[in-house]
Amino acid sequence: MKTLQTLVLLLTFAGFAQKITKKNYEYINPLIGTARMGHTYPGATVPFGSVQLSPDTDTIAYELNKKYNGKVYEYCAGYQYADKTIVGFSHTHFSGTGHSDLGDFLIMPTTGALQLNPGTADKPQGGYRSAYSHNNEVAKANYYKVLLDDHYITAELTASTRVGFHRYTFPKEDTAHIILDLMHGIYNHNEKNVWTFVRVENDTLITGYRQTRGWARTRTVYFAMTFSKPIRNYGAQTYDKDNIYNGFWRKFEQTKNFPEAAAQNLKMYFDFDVAAGEQVLVKMALSPVSTQGAVANMQLEVPHWDFDRTVAEGQRLWEKELDKIEVQTITEDDKVNFYTAMYHAFINPTVYMDADGSYKGLDQNIHKADGFTNYTTFSLWDTYRALHPLFNMIQPKHNADMIQSMLAHYSQSVHNALPVWSHYANENWCMIGYHAVSVIADAVVKGNTGFDTQLALEACINSSNLSYYDGITDYKTYGYVPEDKSVASVSKTLEYAYDDWCIARIAEKLGKKDIAAAYGHRAENYKNVWDAKSGFMRARLSNGTFIKNFDPLDTGQAGYIEGNAWNYSLYVPQDPEALVLMNGGAAKFAVHLDSLFTMQLPDKYFEHTEDISRDGIIGNYVHGNEPSHHVAYLYNWVGQAYKTQQRVRMILNAMYKPAPNGLGGNDDAGQMSAWYIFSSLGFYPVAPGSPDYSLGSPLVEEAVLHLENGKTFTITAKNQSAKNVYVQKVELNGRPLTGLTLKHEDIMKGGNLVFFMGSKAVK
Amino acid sequence: MKTLQTLVLLLTFAGFAQKITKKNYEYINPLIGTARMGHTYPGATVPFGSVQLSPDTDTIAYELNKKYNGKVYEYCAGYQYADKTIVGFSHTHFSGTGHSDLGDFLIMPTTGALQLNPGTADKPQGGYRSAYSHNNEVAKANYYKVLLDDHYITAELTASTRVGFHRYTFPKEDTAHIILDLMHGIYNHNEKNVWTFVRVENDTLITGYRQTRGWARTRTVYFAMTFSKPIRNYGAQTYDKDNIYNGFWRKFEQTKNFPEAAAQNLKMYFDFDVAAGEQVLVKMALSPVSTQGAVANMQLEVPHWDFDRTVAEGQRLWEKELDKIEVQTITEDDKVNFYTAMYHAFINPTVYMDADGSYKGLDQNIHKADGFTNYTTFSLWDTYRALHPLFNMIQPKHNADMIQSMLAHYSQSVHNALPVWSHYANENWCMIGYHAVSVIADAVVKGNTGFDTQLALEACINSSNLSYYDGITDYKTYGYVPEDKSVASVSKTLEYAYDDWCIARIAEKLGKKDIAAAYGHRAENYKNVWDAKSGFMRARLSNGTFIKNFDPLDTGQAGYIEGNAWNYSLYVPQDPEALVLMNGGAAKFAVHLDSLFTMQLPDKYFEHTEDISRDGIIGNYVHGNEPSHHVAYLYNWVGQAYKTQQRVRMILNAMYKPAPNGLGGNDDAGQMSAWYIFSSLGFYPVAPGSPDYSLGSPLVEEAVLHLENGKTFTITAKNQSAKNVYVQKVELNGRPLTGLTLKHEDIMKGGNLVFFMGSKAVK
Repeated sequence: MKTLQTLVLLLTFAGFAQKITKKNYEYINPLIGTARMGHTYPGATVPFGSVQLSPDTDTIAYELNKKYNGKVYEYCAGYQYADKTIVGFSHTHFSGTGHSDLGDFLIMPTTGALQLNPGTADKPQGGYRSAYSHNNEVAKANYYKVLLDDHYITAELTASTRVGFHRYTFPKEDTAHIILDLMHGIYNHNEKNVWTFVRVENDTLITGYRQTRGWARTRTVYFAMTFSKPIRNYGAQTYDKDNIYNGFWRKFEQTKNFPEAAAQNLKMYFDFDVAAGEQVLVKMALSPVSTQGAVANMQLEVPHWDFDRTVAEGQRLWEKELDKIEVQTITEDDKVNFYTAMYHAFINPTVYMDADGSYKGLDQNIHKADGFTNYTTFSLWDTYRALHPLFNMIQPKHNADMIQSMLAHYSQSVHNALPVWSHYANENWCMIGYHAVSVIADAVVKGNTGFDTQLALEACINSSNLSYYDGITDYKTYGYVPEDKSVASVSKTLEYAYDDWCIARIAEKLGKKDIAAAYGHRAENYKNVWDAKSGFMRARLSNGTFIKNFDPLDTGQAGYIEGNAWNYSLYVPQDPEALVLMNGGAAKFAVHLDSLFTMQLPDKYFEHTEDISRDGIIGNYVHGNEPSHHVAYLYNWVGQAYKTQQRVRMILNAMYKPAPNGLGGNDDAGQMSAWYIFSSLGFYPVAPGSPDYSLGSPLVEEAVLHLENGKTFTITAKNQSAKNVYVQKVELNGRPLTGLTLKHEDIMKGGNLVFFMGSKAVK
Repeated sequence: MKTLQTLVLLLTFAGFAQKITKKNYEYINPLIGTARMGHTYPGATVPFGSVQLSPDTDTIAYELNKKYNGKVYEYCAGYQYADKTIVGFSHTHFSGTGHSDLGDFLIMPTTGALQLNPGTADKPQGGYRSAYSHNNEVAKANYYKVLLDDHYITAELTASTRVGFHRYTFPKEDTAHIILDLMHGIYNHNEKNVWTFVRVENDTLITGYRQTRGWARTRTVYFAMTFSKPIRNYGAQTYDKDNIYNGFWRKFEQTKNFPEAAAQNLKMYFDFDVAAGEQVLVKMALSPVSTQGAVANMQLEVPHWDFDRTVAEGQRLWEKELDKIEVQTITEDDKVNFYTAMYHAFINPTVYMDADGSYKGLDQNIHKADGFTNYTTFSLWDTYRALHPLFNMIQPKHNADMIQSMLAHYSQSVHNALPVWSHYANENWCMIGYHAVSVIADAVVKGNTGFDTQLALEACINSSNLSYYDGITDYKTYGYVPEDKSVASVSKTLEYAYDDWCIARIAEKLGKKDIAAAYGHRAENYKNVWDAKSGFMRARLSNGTFIKNFDPLDTGQAGYIEGNAWNYSLYVPQDPEALVLMNGGAAKFAVHLDSLFTMQLPDKYFEHTEDISRDGIIGNYVHGNEPSHHVAYLYNWVGQAYKTQQRVRMILNAMYKPAPNGLGGNDDAGQMSAWYIFSSLGFYPVAPGSPDYSLGSPLVEEAVLHLENGKTFTITAKNQSAKNVYVQKVELNGRPLTGLTLKHEDIMKGGNLVFFMGSKAVK
């Protein structure tokens, strides 16, 4: 078996000997997706880590803007590659999401006069931020390094699950300041900070918390921060409009070397004397529960000051995760793309509990995760499609724990509902559907049932009947969501119908025939928004008529959300055969699909939504956003598998590049990356909740999947090349695979899947 | 033994038979002190109860005032007897304090159109508040009743330790609203509310919390509220200037019958259909920890809907506490005063923990009180003088627990300091001194040591050396606080010196001679602000000179706080002999004291401070505020005990009346009442930390003290009358008591103290 670990190339030139033994995790390039709309961050994190320690190059400057501006979207991950300055290093970041929040506890080292204002990008000297150059920037798995030009400080970052670790090297003898900006945040705002509380416990330990009302409406993160050397002086500055309690007895100094501070808007600074070349290290542990929890997390995870050790420990974690799929690729770039996709896929959801299992629940009470790891950051409208199916294949234990986390959410929810888009004990209701049911269905159907399946079914049923949620009551009454009752009605109807099919699959698996039948019936509701006349899924009113003023190309068209009628009308993943028939049969539908990929779409048609940009579009096919992620595989249902193969390889090449602007759209908490991984391996879960994968065209030459059950499943692409995108035949364990489907159980049993590639389409 | 319980008077008139068996607690009149500056509240509470459920007649109307106004002081307890309207009933109130806060969770029942604005006192119909009449108001121990004129609703209130219980009687069939105003508060303000969070768990149970930044800078109170009948409809209204997260997906209704709400400024309403005469009951349980804790507290304390049972249970608790001192008095009014004083003395400090012992500490972490009851609301500048000594005599177990609570505070304090003025896990630093050491010294010296005395001494030493606190470092350097370094320097120096004497007493008792000597030395620092030339304690600068522009009558005079030079110059409780000598000896000092009580003081001299008003002044003697509370007893040190006797009886009569305006100043968390109780019994702790009480003139005819050690101490005043204020002789256990001192141990041993009273002074 040929693996990367054993692949040692010795290149010997005259007087120059270099041993190249590159491990999988070393192909990770965290900068991929940091430019434009990828919304990834370049900083340090471990797999599914609670801490994401990364530079922020800007956010909404609350000093400048009273209301938030368009940068809310641009700065979802806090970093934009094109920016010339770094504000500082904060400890929590979403990866690839389509909305922004977090950015807690920004730390910035400075020298010279103390400045507590971050300054602006055009005038960095006016504040503590610093210019930097990509030439002096290194981003690897669990390691980030940059030279802060304005202060000549080298900053290095690493992390454990719950601890961010900073190493700052000062070039000359100086007074150094380490600023803790508790006002900084992503999706920031005058009113975002709710409360901050800080205690200087002793001359090296600071504790406290920050409570925000961002996208997460009620969110508190606790911290414990410690320095490698004693603080010489410190201080607190509040920026509140009004200090309600500021009585006459505050007659003694409470802003300098006074160990307690609390305010809505607060910044702290800590001064140190440093020698030339001296390093000052900072550890920042987080907790969702308490400062006690944060201190305990630090003591458990990083009880030392060995920065390099923490880098190495985190990299070993990445190595372990990435070695689960060992690939050979046509080019080194493909390997960078593949392993960076795995990296991005294994960032979210994130661990949300203390080392002892304690976490704050939706009810704001403290709960203990009993027998599972509790996760948060469920971007389910995105991730049900391929990320959770990927986890079911290669991370089943993590996925079962994520489902347990969703069931804990359900148990704590006052709505008796599974998460829609949840983070940090908050339901933000983002996007549509109740796609947690898809995640559960995919796990149940694939036998990954390390959770209470009866409770899960109950949770799915309750979630799908939440009377006040987003048109559900009308959906049940009319068989579709009427647009005059609830907007984005077509998108909702289609996705509810798919979700209902998922619930039917769970019920079927659990032997609940009545429930399976009832939800099987609801699963056909997609038919109720089919307008045979226009040939599109189209919004209907409660009186039964379709709405007028219909433009199937317009993403602003009433009836849809983050997609136009063209793309959404292809969304019946639970029954592509029926979709083909509705569209006039295979031949006609094939032409329809072709036109999707080949038409020219004027700009005006996608200017309505931030989530769809030119970067992510091929014709009218939108890869940069989720609703069409299964579409390239639909050719398999019209007898034109070769077009699936061709389209998939085209998308893999066009939408994923080993560069900062390499992602065609938000990575969406790993969904875009999961699409890449599946498609690179040669198959894709068109309908999560089904045990079948639909075959495409592998990009890899070889992939060895080391499964958690101890089995190995090897995928080989014979005669693979950039041009040989067409599958000539497929063999599973030496026997021809008939049909265009790979069964999940065939992977789980271990074995060999061999694609025979060629440059000519097999029609 | 003659006790009230056995005193049954049968008054029989023609056709009218009335049996009077009035129990001690039935003499309580919660309305005493509710007018003008008493700052008491008329509502329901149990001894040391966490819940103080009481009507608020006004607060700072944040709708009207951007900045807080003078009403901050006027509405410390939320209720002013002169007001004509009631805003509603909130669950937390300070009793008698000189600063305001609390007022959590205002509930108001209404009928008619829903109004969520409280309206104003002059236009009550413009809001939900209601006019009321004192004719329709009943206030008793743990029971309050009022008719809300605007809604014709009879409201009744009672409480257990952690649960407020409301009973609303609706006169006719109607739609009733029960408003939960989470914006209401005492010391309210645009910016006071930090965050509120509410869940409608089911059709009768609501949970949530309110976080404020009032006098307590970081404070959260959790609640669980339940109704006796299902809610028909409910809703939430937010009043935030800016909803930071209000994205497009909030497309479904989230303000009506949506079970979750959170905002900085939030009000809820709950609608019920009521029949004529129907009663709707509401229970509101509080917790300092969590909504889970609040639910558990409710289930444990009030698991039923029997309002009258809770009234009776609370009254039995008052009965038990008040029966600890059974008095016979000259008049019924004296009995009302005495038992209302006991009532007010036993309200603060308040229990601050869940039923299971959990509470939030100063570090914002959850702690468990191990082996003691945790208390909060320590108004120590007031209460060290007589309230804690009273507790050492009649409530030693409670007092030891209070000291344990202060030591827990110390252990959690990032300042390594005992409380100054603390409430709800906050140090608000109010007033001066480190008088917790006095409370500890008084307990240690009197043998009430149910706490870790070594830890207590350590805490006292650390508190008295807190370098950045209020001039302490300069006090240690100069032997006094220089006014140019820290204002109110004379008051601080004098009180620090007394506190240091207290620490010396603790050290002495624990056999730490070096510490006792060192603090004995510090205890003489009062001499360093003595200006022999003016005959007053006078502010000095760091260069050693006394400040110029000195007016010893002016409360605004630099060097003092809440008192003028006249009153503060008498503050050497630890060594009255020395004070007398400094003042030129007994004869001269006696004249000096006389002039204090007899001079005419123009208004201008006390217009500087809210805490001193005409109500509380006799000549230049200020009884309405604390610094002079020991002064009447100083005649005992100049051979004029008869003047102590006369002055004490005069003060008892002048400053305490059985009427709403019956208190001459803030009750100050029980200190004014404790002065009344001691002085009524015939003695007073001039220097807490000393085992000696100084004798005065009892007001009672008889008092039987039922001590916790099982002993009984009986005080009898023979020949007692309103005119016979002079003590002719005193006998302890049948033997003449020589001197003017009663020893604490003589009380604790049980026995009889007999005062022989007469109308002529014994000179």
